[in-house]
Amino acid sequence: MTLLADLLTTVFDRRDRFSWRSKAGDRPLPDLAADLVAAEGEVTGLTIAQQLLAGYRLADDDTKLAFFRHLAEAMTISPAAIRAALAAYEEGQSKASYRAYMEASEPPRQELIRRLNRVPGATRALVGMRTDLLRLGGDDDALQALDLDFRHLFASWFNRGFLVLRPISWESPAHILEKIIAYEAVHAINSWDDLRDRLEPADRRCFAFFHPAMPDEPLIFVEVALTQGVPGAIHDVLTDKRPRLFPEDADTAVFYSISNCQQGLAGISFGNSLIKQVAADLAHEWPGLKTFVTLSPIPGLVRWLGSTGTSPARGEALRVQAAHYLLQAKRPDGQPLDPVARFHLGNGARILHLHADADLSQKGMAQSGGAMVNYLYDFDSVTQNHERYAAKREIAASSEIRGLAAAAEKAEKASDKSAKSATPAKATDDKTNA
Amino acid sequence: MTLLADLLTTVFDRRDRFSWRSKAGDRPLPDLAADLVAAEGEVTGLTIAQQLLAGYRLADDDTKLAFFRHLAEAMTISPAAIRAALAAYEEGQSKASYRAYMEASEPPRQELIRRLNRVPGATRALVGMRTDLLRLGGDDDALQALDLDFRHLFASWFNRGFLVLRPISWESPAHILEKIIAYEAVHAINSWDDLRDRLEPADRRCFAFFHPAMPDEPLIFVEVALTQGVPGAIHDVLTDKRPRLFPEDADTAVFYSISNCQQGLAGISFGNSLIKQVAADLAHEWPGLKTFVTLSPIPGLVRWLGSTGTSPARGEALRVQAAHYLLQAKRPDGQPLDPVARFHLGNGARILHLHADADLSQKGMAQSGGAMVNYLYDFDSVTQNHERYAAKREIAASSEIRGLAAAAEKAEKASDKSAKSATPAKATDDKTNA
Amino acid sequence: MTLLADLLTTVFDRRDRFSWRSKAGDRPLPDLAADLVAAEGEVTGLTIAQQLLAGYRLADDDTKLAFFRHLAEAMTISPAAIRAALAAYEEGQSKASYRAYMEASEPPRQELIRRLNRVPGATRALVGMRTDLLRLGGDDDALQALDLDFRHLFASWFNRGFLVLRPISWESPAHILEKIIAYEAVHAINSWDDLRDRLEPADRRCFAFFHPAMPDEPLIFVEVALTQGVPGAIHDVLTDKRPRLFPEDADTAVFYSISNCQQGLAGISFGNSLIKQVAADLAHEWPGLKTFVTLSPIPGLVRWLGSTGTSPARGEALRVQAAHYLLQAKRPDGQPLDPVARFHLGNGARILHLHADADLSQKGMAQSGGAMVNYLYDFDSVTQNHERYAAKREIAASSEIRGLAAAAEKAEKASDKSAKSATPAKATDDKTNA
Amino acid sequence: MTLLADLLTTVFDRRDRFSWRSKAGDRPLPDLAADLVAAEGEVTGLTIAQQLLAGYRLADDDTKLAFFRHLAEAMTISPAAIRAALAAYEEGQSKASYRAYMEASEPPRQELIRRLNRVPGATRALVGMRTDLLRLGGDDDALQALDLDFRHLFASWFNRGFLVLRPISWESPAHILEKIIAYEAVHAINSWDDLRDRLEPADRRCFAFFHPAMPDEPLIFVEVALTQGVPGAIHDVLTDKRPRLFPEDADTAVFYSISNCQQGLAGISFGNSLIKQVAADLAHEWPGLKTFVTLSPIPGLVRWLGSTGTSPARGEALRVQAAHYLLQAKRPDGQPLDPVARFHLGNGARILHLHADADLSQKGMAQSGGAMVNYLYDFDSVTQNHERYAAKREIAASSEIRGLAAAAEKAEKASDKSAKSATPAKATDDKTNA
Repeated sequence: MTLLADLLTTVFDRRDRFSWRSKAGDRPLPDLAADLVAAEGEVTGLTIAQQLLAGYRLADDDTKLAFFRHLAEAMTISPAAIRAALAAYEEGQSKASYRAYMEASEPPRQELIRRLNRVPGATRALVGMRTDLLRLGGDDDALQALDLDFRHLFASWFNRGFLVLRPISWESPAHILEKIIAYEAVHAINSWDDLRDRLEPADRRCFAFFHPAMPDEPLIFVEVALTQGVPGAIHDVLTDKRPRLFPEDADTAVFYSISNCQQGLAGISFGNSLIKQVAADLAHEWPGLKTFVTLSPIPGLVRWLGSTGTSPARGEALRVQAAHYLLQAKRPDGQPLDPVARFHLGNGARILHLHADADLSQKGMAQSGGAMVNYLYDFDSVTQNHERYAAKREIAASSEIRGLAAAAEKAEKASDKSAKSATPAKATDDKTNA
Repeated sequence: MTLLADLLTTVFDRRDRFSWRSKAGDRPLPDLAADLVAAEGEVTGLTIAQQLLAGYRLADDDTKLAFFRHLAEAMTISPAAIRAALAAYEEGQSKASYRAYMEASEPPRQELIRRLNRVPGATRALVGMRTDLLRLGGDDDALQALDLDFRHLFASWFNRGFLVLRPISWESPAHILEKIIAYEAVHAINSWDDLRDRLEPADRRCFAFFHPAMPDEPLIFVEVALTQGVPGAIHDVLTDKRPRLFPEDADTAVFYSISNCQQGLAGISFGNSLIKQVAADLAHEWPGLKTFVTLSPIPGLVRWLGSTGTSPARGEALRVQAAHYLLQAKRPDGQPLDPVARFHLGNGARILHLHADADLSQKGMAQSGGAMVNYLYDFDSVTQNHERYAAKREIAASSEIRGLAAAAEKAEKASDKSAKSATPAKATDDKTNA
Repeated sequence: MTLLADLLTTVFDRRDRFSWRSKAGDRPLPDLAADLVAAEGEVTGLTIAQQLLAGYRLADDDTKLAFFRHLAEAMTISPAAIRAALAAYEEGQSKASYRAYMEASEPPRQELIRRLNRVPGATRALVGMRTDLLRLGGDDDALQALDLDFRHLFASWFNRGFLVLRPISWESPAHILEKIIAYEAVHAINSWDDLRDRLEPADRRCFAFFHPAMPDEPLIFVEVALTQGVPGAIHDVLTDKRPRLFPEDADTAVFYSISNCQQGLAGISFGNSLIKQVAADLAHEWPGLKTFVTLSPIPGLVRWLGSTGTSPARGEALRVQAAHYLLQAKRPDGQPLDPVARFHLGNGARILHLHADADLSQKGMAQSGGAMVNYLYDFDSVTQNHERYAAKREIAASSEIRGLAAAAEKAEKASDKSAKSATPAKATDDKTNA
Repeated sequence: MTLLADLLTTVFDRRDRFSWRSKAGDRPLPDLAADLVAAEGEVTGLTIAQQLLAGYRLADDDTKLAFFRHLAEAMTISPAAIRAALAAYEEGQSKASYRAYMEASEPPRQELIRRLNRVPGATRALVGMRTDLLRLGGDDDALQALDLDFRHLFASWFNRGFLVLRPISWESPAHILEKIIAYEAVHAINSWDDLRDRLEPADRRCFAFFHPAMPDEPLIFVEVALTQGVPGAIHDVLTDKRPRLFPEDADTAVFYSISNCQQGLAGISFGNSLIKQVAADLAHEWPGLKTFVTLSPIPGLVRWLGSTGTSPARGEALRVQAAHYLLQAKRPDGQPLDPVARFHLGNGARILHLHADADLSQKGMAQSGGAMVNYLYDFDSVTQNHERYAAKREIAASSEIRGLAAAAEKAEKASDKSAKSATPAKATDDKTNA
């Protein structure tokens, strides 16, 4: 234990000393970048890296963008060099020729980023750098290519095997909790009292993934309610008027909010294993928990209805619309239009229930007309569901959902017949995608 | 603190569950490797990765070697594909074409290793895999190229910024301490009592680097004695008959043993910053410490003397020989022949004192005729020393050492004159290198 | 480390399990108390103790008071039994007769409280019990005697050697921090943002004493500002407009707020060593800190002025009044009237500076007309000051303070002369007390 | 968590600083004791207490004994003062008169010990002081009375509610583990390798109670083997040739060794709750564990047989002897002669099985002719067993044991008949005691 407790202390100390004292020099960032990639010794390298990071921290957006352009243009791959190295390698496949190829094939900016990362606390700074890049880069091809290098390295560093799942509770450090408040993306946390209501009661749980090099920055977190039965409305979950449960009396764990925290880690997936691991841990701790289910928004429903010239209905009719949307509305690649559906179905979950009047908040009404959905994580079928979805885009759904979708198709056909000509292309599309 | 304490627990739990329960299937490792690289979803991928690691653990050397050959030959780069991607990239430099190039330019085995690393506890298994590869690979070019890929990924994962320095003491966990006993490479630790003598007294310190994904495996460690004055013999440091110091009465920190622990991390340097960081931490804790110095072996001295047809002398004459060796005996690249000298000089240390009769152990007599050397880490000159060494191979040495080396050259010239013909080419070389 | 981390977990688990599950039976508290004191085995005892604590938790004030009366009257000492045991002891001073005396001399309620304390988590419940007793007991002699037994045991359990000093920071657990907000008694903390301002800046520190059996309950805490020079107004300390200091640039540590947290521990002193220990720790961490000083309220000034028929003046005149009050206004036992002065002078501090317009809050104006005072903790003289104060009630004060007080006496004499007859009794009193 | 991790650090730091630096003065211990009890302020008190503890540490046995005599004679109760206080209390039962009684009734040495305990780290020193007292005190009545005061305070401080149960494993700190080796009292641990065999395998567990003020000193520990079925010989448990179990495959937890660690805490019972709490924790962690049982020595068997003029038999006959001994051989107070039996039966355990040839070590043969016994902890009956034993000295035993004991009585009667006159008094005695 000591070990990693020490780790943290060390990391904090170093970062602090660094952040307070290190002074950026007055040399331009591109010069520092060139020097850092050229540096022979670790000593010199660390000094330059600290200057660069300090300089970057002080830089304005124009300077940052200029720095990114430099990385994108002056520190990219050299096709001629690669071809030469490749030719030499093919002539004589030796350790030396392979090493030469490896060096040539990689843009120097990757080595730059790795060397920057040697500075204690730099990982966080580099994630921030990519956040800037995504914000400033726009559609620029060269900057997007640069982003691929960041992402490539981050995917390696934030490898699932390096992440640590840990519970977030009312006993967690305040500087972590203020980030939970800030990063909650689904159902906003409005105050510290609100946060306490999500964390302190015995029938509430929260878990986050962390990376050891950013120990005070959650990467993604999930909020869980322990309940009796599957809830059908977010208000029933969030209200402080609800009866409190002893965890040992709960039979269901409801994942009612999942939030990514780091924009600079966009595209690097952590959520896949989060739910499964949390479910496994909860099942181990509370053997009475039998059902693991989400209570999820349907963020694209109203937008999609709009695209088909429809408005959200109420009650049963809304559920029919939602089932149709979840099962039939697809992207060109055959996956569902709805991003939340893609996430859970890709994870091997099954669509279990649909609820109208389930999220009456302004955001909930605007996105989905108030509808919400439960995705079920059933340990016995999650791998099979996942594989069918991955291979054939088959969507696992309960008979309830299938029935609602069938009603939607029936209604649509009836409407087609009566109207003869309404949105035929769309209908065809939908069938093709199904 | 909690956070990383939790980390560890989690990591241990997962590894244990994994190590006990996961069963290798009966499929050949190469098939699993192919499937893993091809796997779409994380769920499937994790299962295959666990099977592969479990299968590897159970494999004999022949099976392992066959697996390495498969990685080396079937999962290497495809020059044709790289050229095609490169051409496409040059035609249209887009995000998509750059991404296609990135994928083509990297051998699939790198992605394989990254995916294996997603399994909790896998980092350690992968380090073990490389240990096997170095042992079994020999001079085979393709296997050495494969090793470069391991090393490339490990250098990224074991980046200095991810490492954690922590003290090792008699209060450290026994399963860590038994590794200190096992890995001590300079002055053997013969028993737990011996270990206690190195750790428990108030004038002894030990520090190690750890990686969060291998929290119970030290990567490198250094043993330190707090003394009054610079010691000239290892026996004075190690004897339990010595007077014990209160740390606040010490003026000198002596780094008397540095050991690398992980063969599978060969070539990935941690030591550079270890001494400097330990020195900084000690200086902060005990402001009375003014001198930071090693007491180091001279492992190549006798061998080199032999190569010049000489035997180690005794007393002052041995010191003259050693000074000559350290300052003049060079590799073709201009660096000193002596590996320990290369390490400390490359770090920015200065050669301070030479001692005869300093290590009378069998090993010490065999390697250096009993001579030892102090390298001084002087904060004010370490960067300058390092840079001069890196740029011009200039060796920083005290006037004592310079004097001894001058005596050696004088003697040599005298000997040259008298003998007229002794090893003239070598002498020239030496001068050139100096 | 592990050890006490584990401790906590264990303690929490047990308490939780206990608090959720244990059911108070339906037997009256006095019956349970009698059974507990009579219980032979630990097993039976623990069960009864849990029932009693659970029953107490559910009890209303009348039931609690009845329970206290029972303890006060039925479980008190028996003079006859004590005399008998004493006589037997005098006849034959043996282990057995001494043991019999010990048992007789102690009221059974002490053993009751000790046995209750065997239940995990009970210490906190017992502190709560005494809080109730102090609230409900009033001037009742028997209940006050009962309170002495609680206090006697608590003084032993909350022995200084068992307490642990630990820093409170913005990285502390939220459930601890909410108690800091709640318990701050000097300068109210109005929100979590306000709290962050007191904890997060690098020039702010906070420390609390904890007891291992109540690990989430601070006992007393002190807030510290690191400054350049001694501040003369609380606003300068608390304002978020102040320039932020690097701790290494500070020369002064200002203890600007000390709050006791547990009413149930009234009369058990922790503060004496708190300031000295915090000062020692800060001096070790930041060698640049040379001055350790409070910025303290003068809570009794206006009240005392009122008792002399005076109102608080402004500016210099207020300082004169305050100096007079601090140096001359005494209790019958010769100690200063002002409780804060008693605390710091008893600790060995010296009165350093007096400031008018130093606390313009409503509370500050009402208590002291806005005056505040610095008490200086000078390591070299603190023991001497303390001993002189303890032995002879001598008050250590700077020449500034002595000068102000002299001005006050002069003015008073002048006023006496001019008025001839004004408040002569009071003047006499003052002299008597001085 | 942080909290108590910090606690420890603090405690260690303080102790170290104290132990290295504080200097005993040259004043005699009794003078320091008098001053300490008289000291008014905490500051002065702490200084004196440190001097006394340092002086004691340096003292030889004669000095220590003289100090104990001083405590025993000069700092004991004053019957006259107690009577006076008692009379005053009876005249007017007020807070003041009760307080005066409390002070008079307690020997000043109790306050002395409490004040010594204010020094950080002193608890351990005081436990060592009592160890000395028990060693040096002999049968002296006054010193035994002094010991009762130590014991009274220790019983309050080492209250069950303050203790912490924590696992001991191969990952525990070495300085704790060396104490496990030292304190193991039942089946000796001969080396660190031997220790590793007891701690590292997945089917081995060890737990100890700790006190927060002595965090590196186990108070009592128990070693547990997870097995399939109840083992009948210690060799089967300890051999490293045994098949290793996965904990999830075990159905039985065997408590095969319980050792008290601190002689200075003699007479203060921790073991009662240890087994039950460990059993509860194991049952929670490994739901497959159904049977909780000891494999215990019968330390008094051979001695008792000797007292009846018998020698230990072999095989079945030895089991008959042992059953007779455990069920029939009693102390005057009606409890079993065998101390281990008293411990477990008093705890509510039941005698389950008897085994011959179960401990063939020299010690085992000498104590019990190689016999061992299983005591069963059955959660459903442990309270009932405990109460029957406490109230009526009824011994819970399986029918197997009852059958063996009946065979013994039968044989005895037969022998009585045949011999007519052999040990009739004894037989009567036994019946009386049963």
